[in-house]
Amino acid sequence: MPKTQKTQRSKTSKQVETPIQPQTETHEQQLVETPGIQIICSQNDLSTNLSLVSHAVPQRPTHPILANVLLFADEKSQQVHLTVFDLSLGIQTSFDAQVRSGGEITIPVEILSDIVERFPQGDITFNNQAVKADKLGESEETAESLIATLTADSGRYQVRGLSAEEFPRLPEVTVQQAIHLPAETLKVGLRGSLFATTSDEAKLILTGVHIKLEQDILELAATDGHRLAVLQASTQGIAGKKKQPDNTDDAPLSLSFTVPAKALRELERILEMRTSTDPVALYYKKEEEIVAFHWGKQRLVSRCLEGQYPAYPELLKHDFKHQMTLEKAPLVKALERIAVLADKKEKTVKLYFNSEDQQLSLFMARDFGEGEELIPACISGESLYICFNIKYLLDAVKAIRSSEVQMQLTSSDGPAIVVPFGNRDKPHVLIDVKYLLMPVVKGV
Amino acid sequence: MPKTQKTQRSKTSKQVETPIQPQTETHEQQLVETPGIQIICSQNDLSTNLSLVSHAVPQRPTHPILANVLLFADEKSQQVHLTVFDLSLGIQTSFDAQVRSGGEITIPVEILSDIVERFPQGDITFNNQAVKADKLGESEETAESLIATLTADSGRYQVRGLSAEEFPRLPEVTVQQAIHLPAETLKVGLRGSLFATTSDEAKLILTGVHIKLEQDILELAATDGHRLAVLQASTQGIAGKKKQPDNTDDAPLSLSFTVPAKALRELERILEMRTSTDPVALYYKKEEEIVAFHWGKQRLVSRCLEGQYPAYPELLKHDFKHQMTLEKAPLVKALERIAVLADKKEKTVKLYFNSEDQQLSLFMARDFGEGEELIPACISGESLYICFNIKYLLDAVKAIRSSEVQMQLTSSDGPAIVVPFGNRDKPHVLIDVKYLLMPVVKGV
Repeated sequence: MPKTQKTQRSKTSKQVETPIQPQTETHEQQLVETPGIQIICSQNDLSTNLSLVSHAVPQRPTHPILANVLLFADEKSQQVHLTVFDLSLGIQTSFDAQVRSGGEITIPVEILSDIVERFPQGDITFNNQAVKADKLGESEETAESLIATLTADSGRYQVRGLSAEEFPRLPEVTVQQAIHLPAETLKVGLRGSLFATTSDEAKLILTGVHIKLEQDILELAATDGHRLAVLQASTQGIAGKKKQPDNTDDAPLSLSFTVPAKALRELERILEMRTSTDPVALYYKKEEEIVAFHWGKQRLVSRCLEGQYPAYPELLKHDFKHQMTLEKAPLVKALERIAVLADKKEKTVKLYFNSEDQQLSLFMARDFGEGEELIPACISGESLYICFNIKYLLDAVKAIRSSEVQMQLTSSDGPAIVVPFGNRDKPHVLIDVKYLLMPVVKGV
Repeated sequence: MPKTQKTQRSKTSKQVETPIQPQTETHEQQLVETPGIQIICSQNDLSTNLSLVSHAVPQRPTHPILANVLLFADEKSQQVHLTVFDLSLGIQTSFDAQVRSGGEITIPVEILSDIVERFPQGDITFNNQAVKADKLGESEETAESLIATLTADSGRYQVRGLSAEEFPRLPEVTVQQAIHLPAETLKVGLRGSLFATTSDEAKLILTGVHIKLEQDILELAATDGHRLAVLQASTQGIAGKKKQPDNTDDAPLSLSFTVPAKALRELERILEMRTSTDPVALYYKKEEEIVAFHWGKQRLVSRCLEGQYPAYPELLKHDFKHQMTLEKAPLVKALERIAVLADKKEKTVKLYFNSEDQQLSLFMARDFGEGEELIPACISGESLYICFNIKYLLDAVKAIRSSEVQMQLTSSDGPAIVVPFGNRDKPHVLIDVKYLLMPVVKGV
């Protein structure tokens, strides 16, 4: 039977005892007379820009302020700048607003973003002012605390902030040479390589994507130790240099560094969100191992991973004498079907390249059942069997952006590569794509 | 650097050593010469019907066979019947197929459903035959085991089954009086009540929805101890009796029983999937405390929960003297915004019914901030404050299917009810809807 609920917190109970007074009056009495930020902006601008930066905030920050967004209202330029920075990855974005009074404050970004996202379309007024402590309860902090107030048509929200003085500043990387990349190339390159990085933090350098720029070729490489993705794009005709008068470095560009996958996933997400086709400028500061991507009013800055990236080009020099070509779509579907039999323990799919019947057979066996798929294929060389982790094979085939897929093999226990074939999707974007897979062979 | 992967299971490794032979031949050699089921059916029929029953299968079955679906191929009627039954909840569905040879087998439903769902559209051939043991490895089972084989255009899958003899049979409930309900009424009633049940298994009877039929009124009630949902629909002109010649019970219908929310959620899900508008027949077998819902070629059978349901009608007899009416949409939006401040620990929202300003104020305060929403409302009686668990209030308001919402209150520490007001959505479906909420009051 329904019964009266008990509150868990006596504080709430106390508040219940006094009928709510019109909140506006109560608050204003407690405001200290120091002028703060005053902004009027559109709900859409604030919400979009918050969602752009909020993802990058760490789940368990080492310091509370790292869960905050730095809001800087610039009266002169009538712009609001939002910055998050977890000391490794930082994102900054700016938008136009009516800045009546400028200033800085940091606010917990998750709660701010959640509230603003639900505000009705239209103008939002943002204020921040120092408020007497105990305003929001039995705080043991100093006599003043920063309160950010958001007011829209129907509602008014106050969120406790922290002083901007304590917020770490984003490193400046713009004094270096810039490389300009079409956003589309970067997006396609990231999508095609990020999945091959490892999420195992113990593997350090393999948690990132290796970026190499040499003689107008941009190369992205990623490996988790079992598979490798290598993608190349031409920067010819698009590479440029930062037009800074003090930049006299005319040496040919030759850079290589490894960027954490986390930062690049954010970059990919933000680039997917934007509609502009302006190129992205890439800056790399070797001394500090920092990389920055700038576009429009946004920038992403990340520390690079330390250490030597594996000498992966060696792996691509094998003699891939067996070749098989087949349509991509039916291969993906067959792999997805047979992958139903896989689980955490067992992911091995057996492939049989039947040269006689010009047919690929996929086979997977488990205690509870087994599955077989037959797909017509164009096979050169002798018949051959090989086993792969089905997840890795499926990842590679799905990442291929062409109507057909070619597999090139060395032997049953040597590396194989998967490459695009036939009609390519947006052929101009990437000039070369290779997915190398190590086979599953007999256990020791 | 990529390196060769090791298998975790030597069994797989052994299989790798022998090149895959064309699978078809190998298997047929091992088949025992006992004729089994032979069906040809459409992928769409088999997949749809499997997805209908597969949800009801327990995650951790007490016996392996309860994770299986019973497939019964009836040669005479050229129908396939699928049944799942966890001893409390059972679902049966049938579809037309070309049954060349009838029979029964049980198969793990999840794996079967996952495979069939991914099959290309078109015909699927289903066979089952007894196979020599060690066919699929070092099994310690008896010399024969049941293997179900699915063959489609490109692929062939074999899944190990269990004998149908061990599968528990669904209780028959059709010899009782039937109540016919429009499917739409049932759907709306379930959607409006299920959320108010508790998921706390210790509360036994409150994990179900109480169904009462009395004098042409169907009543659904659900409570978790803090809130109560009561919905009524008229069965006048739709109530009927089973046209069984041996049914001579002409006493007026008066039934009440409590059905597990799990079973009703399945019922709601299946009713949402179907397109037919045929009524649903409800059967209740008091002696065995079993309820059955039949429609078309499908039926759902469930055991009822034992015990006395709380005497909830008493709670609705309070003097709800304070009334407030306001538009539903802005109230839902304001509650959703302010609910951003809630978390697992604290969910209390303060409401202030300001009679003077004809305005509702919502207020929520936390350590890190606070929020206030003001909404115009039509308030009769004195001004009043009351606190609710915001989740319960939001659930109730969202469940209301009308343009406006009315709240009726007794006092700051007494129960309140939320009812539809103004233009109703599909007014013919439900004749009465009441959500009762207990307020959050001062802790002991």
